[in-house]
Amino acid sequence: MPTIHGVLETALHVADLDRAERFYADVLGFAVMVADGRLRALSVAGRQVLLLFQQGGTAQPVTLPGGVIPPHDGQGRLHLAFAIDAADWEPWRERLTAAGVAVESVVHWDRGGRSLYFRDPDQHLVELVTPGCWPIY
Amino acid sequence: MPTIHGVLETALHVADLDRAERFYADVLGFAVMVADGRLRALSVAGRQVLLLFQQGGTAQPVTLPGGVIPPHDGQGRLHLAFAIDAADWEPWRERLTAAGVAVESVVHWDRGGRSLYFRDPDQHLVELVTPGCWPIY
Repeated sequence: MPTIHGVLETALHVADLDRAERFYADVLGFAVMVADGRLRALSVAGRQVLLLFQQGGTAQPVTLPGGVIPPHDGQGRLHLAFAIDAADWEPWRERLTAAGVAVESVVHWDRGGRSLYFRDPDQHLVELVTPGCWPIY
Repeated sequence: MPTIHGVLETALHVADLDRAERFYADVLGFAVMVADGRLRALSVAGRQVLLLFQQGGTAQPVTLPGGVIPPHDGQGRLHLAFAIDAADWEPWRERLTAAGVAVESVVHWDRGGRSLYFRDPDQHLVELVTPGCWPIY
């Protein structure tokens, strides 16, 4: 059976691309790779791509020289989580607070990890997790 | 500045948990780590977690012994992509076809990579990508 190496892209649909980019680039530190009127593509630690799409801007196919990107869309307070070191939990809590981002919840997991939950400007539920949450992490 | 190591969790909201689990476990090969009436958590190559939530089942906070998971939700034909080897592109195309999953589009990227696009049972837009798509991949 052919293999899959991991998640490469995860996508959010946002009301204001510039506002969302500022949050993920300035607060979380992701590098912007592509920025246009349709989307922003940010590098998550050089390992994955966070795609921010303009709400309503992806419902039609996109024709490129190399093929067609099929339509997609999304609404709601989507959830995604990013991995952090245990030693960075408190620095992240402080950094979020200093940036004016309210920590909505803290969860201690049975395996010893803990999570910080907060909202991006579009009310997506973002989580930072230390090791000790899942069997694989 | 504290660091982020990568995407850990990405989430979809599905109409039928069993049906979605069959697709991601049987067709894409992800291992099921948690299965209950609220969610399925699948291991993506032991590196990330794909969360499948029952549609409408996450709009209320979940109180655990270690804290509260805040509410979240999602609708639409969300997009996510998984990384594959270039040598696995054709085996994946054949595997999808054999499983009755229609390949909706193929895109060749300027950097030399290529993508297979198809739908999961909830019409999410799933992509398998070879290296040569992004500056980081």
